[in-house]
Amino acid sequence: MKTTLLSFLIFFSFLSAFPQEKAVWIWYPGDFEVWLQREVGGRRQERGQPYPPFWRIDSPYGLVSFQNTFEVPEPETIKIYADGRYSLRIDGNLISDFDPMKLIVPSGKHQLLLLVENYKTFPSILIEGKTIRTGKQWLVTNQNKTYFSVDAGDFYDPMKPPATFSLEYTPITAKIIQKQTNKMLLDFGKETFGKVIVRNANGTGKIRLYYGETQQEALAQAEAETYDYIDINRNKPASDTTAARAFRYIYAVNDAGVSYDDLSALYEYLPLTNKGGFSCSDTLLNRIYDVSLYTLLLTTREFHLDGIKRDRWTWGGDAYQSYLMNFYTFFDEGVNTRTLWALRGHDPVETHINTILDYSFYWMMGIYDNYLYTGDTAFVKQIYPRMKTMMEFCLGRANKNGFVEGLPGDWVFIDWAPIEKSGEVSFQQLLLARSLEATALSAQLAGDPDYATKCRDLSENIRKKIVETFWSDQKNALVHSRKEGVLSETVTRYANMFAILFDYADPEMKKKIRDHVILNDSILKITTPYMKFYELASLCEIGEKEKAIKFVKDYWGGMLNLGATTIWEAYDPDQKGDEHYAMYGRPFGKSLCHAWGANPVYLFGKYLLGIKPTSPGYATYIIEPSLAGLEWIKGKVPTPNGSIELYMNQSEIRVKTVSGKGTLRIKSDKEPKAENGVTITRTGDKLYEIILSIPDKEYTIRYRLPE
Amino acid sequence: MKTTLLSFLIFFSFLSAFPQEKAVWIWYPGDFEVWLQREVGGRRQERGQPYPPFWRIDSPYGLVSFQNTFEVPEPETIKIYADGRYSLRIDGNLISDFDPMKLIVPSGKHQLLLLVENYKTFPSILIEGKTIRTGKQWLVTNQNKTYFSVDAGDFYDPMKPPATFSLEYTPITAKIIQKQTNKMLLDFGKETFGKVIVRNANGTGKIRLYYGETQQEALAQAEAETYDYIDINRNKPASDTTAARAFRYIYAVNDAGVSYDDLSALYEYLPLTNKGGFSCSDTLLNRIYDVSLYTLLLTTREFHLDGIKRDRWTWGGDAYQSYLMNFYTFFDEGVNTRTLWALRGHDPVETHINTILDYSFYWMMGIYDNYLYTGDTAFVKQIYPRMKTMMEFCLGRANKNGFVEGLPGDWVFIDWAPIEKSGEVSFQQLLLARSLEATALSAQLAGDPDYATKCRDLSENIRKKIVETFWSDQKNALVHSRKEGVLSETVTRYANMFAILFDYADPEMKKKIRDHVILNDSILKITTPYMKFYELASLCEIGEKEKAIKFVKDYWGGMLNLGATTIWEAYDPDQKGDEHYAMYGRPFGKSLCHAWGANPVYLFGKYLLGIKPTSPGYATYIIEPSLAGLEWIKGKVPTPNGSIELYMNQSEIRVKTVSGKGTLRIKSDKEPKAENGVTITRTGDKLYEIILSIPDKEYTIRYRLPE
Repeated sequence: MKTTLLSFLIFFSFLSAFPQEKAVWIWYPGDFEVWLQREVGGRRQERGQPYPPFWRIDSPYGLVSFQNTFEVPEPETIKIYADGRYSLRIDGNLISDFDPMKLIVPSGKHQLLLLVENYKTFPSILIEGKTIRTGKQWLVTNQNKTYFSVDAGDFYDPMKPPATFSLEYTPITAKIIQKQTNKMLLDFGKETFGKVIVRNANGTGKIRLYYGETQQEALAQAEAETYDYIDINRNKPASDTTAARAFRYIYAVNDAGVSYDDLSALYEYLPLTNKGGFSCSDTLLNRIYDVSLYTLLLTTREFHLDGIKRDRWTWGGDAYQSYLMNFYTFFDEGVNTRTLWALRGHDPVETHINTILDYSFYWMMGIYDNYLYTGDTAFVKQIYPRMKTMMEFCLGRANKNGFVEGLPGDWVFIDWAPIEKSGEVSFQQLLLARSLEATALSAQLAGDPDYATKCRDLSENIRKKIVETFWSDQKNALVHSRKEGVLSETVTRYANMFAILFDYADPEMKKKIRDHVILNDSILKITTPYMKFYELASLCEIGEKEKAIKFVKDYWGGMLNLGATTIWEAYDPDQKGDEHYAMYGRPFGKSLCHAWGANPVYLFGKYLLGIKPTSPGYATYIIEPSLAGLEWIKGKVPTPNGSIELYMNQSEIRVKTVSGKGTLRIKSDKEPKAENGVTITRTGDKLYEIILSIPDKEYTIRYRLPE
Repeated sequence: MKTTLLSFLIFFSFLSAFPQEKAVWIWYPGDFEVWLQREVGGRRQERGQPYPPFWRIDSPYGLVSFQNTFEVPEPETIKIYADGRYSLRIDGNLISDFDPMKLIVPSGKHQLLLLVENYKTFPSILIEGKTIRTGKQWLVTNQNKTYFSVDAGDFYDPMKPPATFSLEYTPITAKIIQKQTNKMLLDFGKETFGKVIVRNANGTGKIRLYYGETQQEALAQAEAETYDYIDINRNKPASDTTAARAFRYIYAVNDAGVSYDDLSALYEYLPLTNKGGFSCSDTLLNRIYDVSLYTLLLTTREFHLDGIKRDRWTWGGDAYQSYLMNFYTFFDEGVNTRTLWALRGHDPVETHINTILDYSFYWMMGIYDNYLYTGDTAFVKQIYPRMKTMMEFCLGRANKNGFVEGLPGDWVFIDWAPIEKSGEVSFQQLLLARSLEATALSAQLAGDPDYATKCRDLSENIRKKIVETFWSDQKNALVHSRKEGVLSETVTRYANMFAILFDYADPEMKKKIRDHVILNDSILKITTPYMKFYELASLCEIGEKEKAIKFVKDYWGGMLNLGATTIWEAYDPDQKGDEHYAMYGRPFGKSLCHAWGANPVYLFGKYLLGIKPTSPGYATYIIEPSLAGLEWIKGKVPTPNGSIELYMNQSEIRVKTVSGKGTLRIKSDKEPKAENGVTITRTGDKLYEIILSIPDKEYTIRYRLPE
């Protein structure tokens, strides 16, 4: 049976409820993110020049109206906090001359309406009372006649409205590894991100700080991607702090007239805990996991950023992988939904997400995956109207065959690779079909069944047409594209591996794709961790986990051997020396801390520990662990209900469950053994399923790994 | 022959050229206005509480990209001024480490691109060089892949970017007309608008300023529509200035612990010159003209405001009349286009203009009228994309008959009158048909002929259906509405007078409308100057100018008799005493300085002086003067080429022409006489046409007024 996304609806139709214990700051959904995106996106610099995004950046709605109705049992004193100017109406009557710290609302049923104006950041309010208080059940409108449920986050302090949001800071120090007159090179030991502190600077002149992910970059000065020039003009020492930058090395060059005591930094970070974990009998894989995790930590900030040195922007395709990696590590839904709102901005949709055709699709798929892992229906309902206009934009640009292709102004990305990007690219049609499924599911959850039906039907139709159009019995694969009615002769990995991942190929086709594409070295190789993400996953899906793990050791291990303390944007083992650092025609253009490089954290969790949800929020889940040639593996995978823990060696599997129904699937040479009462079902030759239905219980299963 | 709007196209197809003499600040079209609307709209207060508009207010695009290409004959030093952070690329290359006051651009052909970020106000730039400088020929995009011609205004000072825009100020004083301990009542002599100055306030306590358009309002204190409480807490005198308010009277009440020297004000105004003018043998009409003109002056500010005391907002229907009045007085196109941009804001269109169905139509009609009077094609081209999305919004809400009606969330206004507003109101269909004509014309000018055809066809179709559906041979009129398929029995003035004004009725129908509606006292009377505007115009169109003038004397004269120094929002001669000041359920809710009250300035210019353009920008025009029972009239009507001057008594007409082809139409008992060479054509019984083809010439025509 084919699993389509909508089948999850059978299991889940609950309404997300947020009983509001404590008054919380509320705002127009998505506008915290639209505001933050404006701040974060605009921080990119290149050689001292501001370099904001090249797509439309929206401003939050500066004038919004909050409302809610309360049954007040007895006269109640409320306190009103607002980030912005506001007027208050109770039951439609304007209230004037009141003290917002002690406004008495009479008993009875009352409607409160606050019209709040804030064009500087964005409007938000917090109201504290016994029964009247702000929470997720309030409604808000930008005065376009449509009301939405408000958004809220972890902002409970009346003195700290959401626009005071900030990452956290902790001091870090560096070693001086070169020192000459007025020049020194510092090493912070590993890639990091922070604000540099120049302590007790004095005199007159400039201090130039050249940042480097490598020593070479810092020492290259003018060719370093980022630098700060600090102008000092004083006769009494004082300390200076820069904006936050990414670096491992800093080359500090000061004019003769300037002195300072030392340089250190404030490490800037989003407080995150790894609720996942992985270790195994192979120390290289353990190191790869740790460096990948650190890479993901550095790039998981206000949003999922692509990398920390250069763009520091949100990118739909990059972020999609970060959502998934996040679910196997921090399980921080906030950064996912922040990123999804930020990428989308406001209506109207005038370009693709980041102007990239494929990135619009990853954006829609991301909403689905976030729902699958968290079960958060409230978010789906809030963002659905923007998902629908996004889909309408995409469908409005489909050609007469119902296929999408790059139109003027569209960037067709796919991957950094020398491939055809014009015409009907099969890869893009697969993403479209999957996005239609994701939109159908969201439409169903948001109460728009007609659009759900439309999208489901369109998706089925496109999936059929993909096979009819692009499948070649001669090539035993989907061909790359069709242009002006002529099919390409070229086979690439992209569409074929997604056909496996999306389960859009039948078993016979999957086998052919495995042999003629995935395991065929004559097909153009992938050289970015970005597309490696999907290639490795498809290798695992077709049962080639050992090959996938070997590849990880070679490719990621290769970067570690070159001294990487974080994973790179791209890596070509055939390059030598400083060639590794060049990209985009610039000697240090490559990002050496790039989120998409962190994908082993996802791969190990999903395909070695083998844990994944099969219905939203892990209400049901599967554990299908694999040693992939290792002696033992051990780890944790977070869920909304705590972390599932697993240990496996060649004869024993131990699982600690969470709430929800888990199914353990294993291969064993003999009938596995568990404690009394555990149902073990043989499902095929040496294949067994074991139901783990009791939450928070440690199960131990004895088995024998087949040769 | 029926004159439809599109026929003007035959005469005019020139491209608007703006040779740029001097470097000027440039910005994204409409965003100066979107920013200013945010400021102005948010200034409304009611009883000390902020009261911003109840429709969606947009923010300007905070990140835009300006570009232009120049042929530079020799290396050239340019100065770059920007309101915002920016990066500069020349021929695609990022420029770093440059002095924006002396950047040298090498000779040759170069493309300059500036990406400018400003979320506080809006991005704007000014570049000064010998050949490279900012002007209207630059292009700009909000990064949605569409480029527009930039907008610019009268901002040439590099130190004063457009976001420093301010009205002007001049000191005014008042007489104290009541004085008691800690209380005094001031009279500024007439309605005015300004910031109050409290000179040398000292001590501890509050000074309460209650503003009144009447003494009664100021003295009513808590019931005054606006007031300021100034908190004083000092032991050394200092002066305080309030925000700008509307008032004639101020009642100042201070706590015993506070003292001050005196109160005066800074009159706040847009510098405007009356390029029109009107006087006649009737002194009451002359007073009415003067008071109307002053009313228009006070309400013509950053935008055309409805009134100065209460809303101080832009309203599509009110503004439409102000555009037209403006063309007979100040001829200040800037305030018209500012208002049109501000009313519209950004896409997407989610509600009608001001949420009012009819106001969307007036907005589209306003673009047409602005073009007719000024001939400014550049503005039409810039705003056309938003006109098209506005029209698409309206058409998307039409019912199966192609008619519009109020849908949930729509406000159907028409007038302050007890009339049916639900269902298919005939009046709204007339506005729709006219708006379709206006959109067709704009589409043609903006190079979208397919949409022009669509709108023209739709308009013709709707005009036909209006007559088929609403014309009653029994009532000899258009009936008011149809609801659930049932025609109303009611006839109102609205649709019928617009059928005359829009020339949508044939001569036979017009005659019937005149006798059975316009001159029929049993039809519900109009009690707002707002709809009087159209009623008086339609009276004039059907040849009843004397009746119109009599009405003006009665109605406007009635307000003057009650001491009005500006014209009111509404006036019912049957009301008594303070009843006149109440509205919206509040004793002083009525605005006593309301733009729509100023309509005599339009009426006298268009129907007594009888001057109007017959092709855009007065390339051709008609002068059809009428004494309407007066002994003599005299006046001026501005055009883009100077003012046409006219004097008329019962035997002589003197006209001073401007460039363009003028046609004088008069009734005379004998063949008129003019100097040699002037062509006089008899066009009917006692009807003559005289071609005034020489610009800036004073023609004298002798004639005899028929009895």
